[in-house]
Amino acid sequence: MQDLPQLLSQIQQYAGDQPFPATPPELYEPCAYMLELGGKRLRPALLLMACNMYQPTINAALPAAWAVELFHNFTLMHDDIMDAAPLRRGKQTVHTRWNLTTGILSGDVMLIHAYRHLASTTPTSLVPELIQIFNRVAIGVCEGQQMDVNFETRSDVSLEDYIHMIELKTAVLLGGALEMGARCGGASTTDAEHLYQFGRLAGIAFQIQDDLLDTYGDPEKFGKQVGGDILQNKKTFLVLKTMEVAPAADQQALQTWMQTGPETDGVAKIEAVRALFDRNGIPNLVEAAKHDFQQAAFQHLDAVTLPETQKSVLRQLVENLLVREH
Amino acid sequence: MQDLPQLLSQIQQYAGDQPFPATPPELYEPCAYMLELGGKRLRPALLLMACNMYQPTINAALPAAWAVELFHNFTLMHDDIMDAAPLRRGKQTVHTRWNLTTGILSGDVMLIHAYRHLASTTPTSLVPELIQIFNRVAIGVCEGQQMDVNFETRSDVSLEDYIHMIELKTAVLLGGALEMGARCGGASTTDAEHLYQFGRLAGIAFQIQDDLLDTYGDPEKFGKQVGGDILQNKKTFLVLKTMEVAPAADQQALQTWMQTGPETDGVAKIEAVRALFDRNGIPNLVEAAKHDFQQAAFQHLDAVTLPETQKSVLRQLVENLLVREH
Repeated sequence: MQDLPQLLSQIQQYAGDQPFPATPPELYEPCAYMLELGGKRLRPALLLMACNMYQPTINAALPAAWAVELFHNFTLMHDDIMDAAPLRRGKQTVHTRWNLTTGILSGDVMLIHAYRHLASTTPTSLVPELIQIFNRVAIGVCEGQQMDVNFETRSDVSLEDYIHMIELKTAVLLGGALEMGARCGGASTTDAEHLYQFGRLAGIAFQIQDDLLDTYGDPEKFGKQVGGDILQNKKTFLVLKTMEVAPAADQQALQTWMQTGPETDGVAKIEAVRALFDRNGIPNLVEAAKHDFQQAAFQHLDAVTLPETQKSVLRQLVENLLVREH
Repeated sequence: MQDLPQLLSQIQQYAGDQPFPATPPELYEPCAYMLELGGKRLRPALLLMACNMYQPTINAALPAAWAVELFHNFTLMHDDIMDAAPLRRGKQTVHTRWNLTTGILSGDVMLIHAYRHLASTTPTSLVPELIQIFNRVAIGVCEGQQMDVNFETRSDVSLEDYIHMIELKTAVLLGGALEMGARCGGASTTDAEHLYQFGRLAGIAFQIQDDLLDTYGDPEKFGKQVGGDILQNKKTFLVLKTMEVAPAADQQALQTWMQTGPETDGVAKIEAVRALFDRNGIPNLVEAAKHDFQQAAFQHLDAVTLPETQKSVLRQLVENLLVREH
């Protein structure tokens, strides 16, 4: 079994060997810039790990691994426009550094290059199935993004709606990466489906954890401003859980806070909303929900018909991601 | 051989049988709206004709035919944003009727659905090659759009640059549609390549003709405002030819006109620029260039190893498109 650094170095090498075309530079330099902004290459790593569970060499999975990374970066480039975000990881977003046209068109071509890599997979017999999995997931991601956009102006979002949105917007891509990798490695469709479900459910657990960390994370370890979701009046898992379980007075108080804008004292707002979450036991309820998804996820990993040694690298990675301190 | 109406009715039926998902409606209604804006379904028609040259039934080509139409509409939706165009065919563009987010995201999902249709082609053995042709063409279209954007601010665009831009932006998709259709019908790669070149070269001829009609078309028959390109200071084939062949004084006069904005008397501007074209014999030179591409195109159709009766429907369609009155 190859470990994470070994897998990441292979994906890095593949990407270096298959650069974007040189021209037109106005189209491709923003693509390279976006990819250099970093990111952990989590999705290709998952894809290669799933392949490596079934095969010692992971060459067959490299094009698909890079395709999911390109797809992910395409979604970030377009989402940044929709969110009017000036910065990503402290650097200018593409549409800010260049312009709207570049943000749209470089994103478009990055998506098409993702398909180009996918279609270069050998053996060719893998291509139709990989494309089908990829399409299903990619359509889900767009639908999830649309739901997220809709939620901003909807006042009747339920916890169930929210879970479905994060499932589509972020979790299915993690599941799809594992499913594609497994099929590249020769896994049965049953095993591949278990790995898809593992990634999907773990992805929902990650997202719930992210919501929790945004409000309760250690400012030293959390990459973003703690309390950012509260300041932006985001309808997170914490908010929606509160609207489910809190007494009417607290629900009303939370709604009032969420109608305040940037003129409000941010420190006081974060403090007040956090106190409101605390007195309703929200952190524990959210932890419990995360735990349920996490447990359901690992049941699918357990069901994969391989000896435990073959699963350990993947299990370890996902466990580490799900026990971030807060 | 099936005629154009027969082929169009089958593509219409296929599209009706394979609608977009119902939810989220905010994502898919704009896709349906865009497709209902019309268009002649030229690209799917070409694809089906190419298939039908080799096969009496065209079922294998229907998914690819609809995929190229979805792709074309995806490019229109995003190009309308980049051009800040409020109207298309007299109706509001998607980003105007809805908003920027919708224009981007509905376009994205339409592109992915194009791949979904492609990947559903049977026999499955066709899928990898169809996807490869499609990717090559789609990347070309994005690169062509970028070149078009670049040309707006470049002052050193040559006629050669321009032809390369229209080749990528519009002609390769016509060629690719024919190539894909031919392969669906079982054509040899040699025949498919000849059909690709036929479509590509005819596509360049169409675009040159379009430039000519924009300035010299019959206002009764031409769908858009005659002289629109002149008013928008577009670097068309006519302008670039003038910069190649006209005496320095006329080149200077044209450049001066092209630096005037919407405050200028439009009727006088169109009249003056047209007079300038006329006295340099530009219409005849442009006609000659169109004729050269057209002739080169039909040489490739002639080289296709089929009896003439099998080629007649396609030949007739393209001939009709290339003799529009002006």
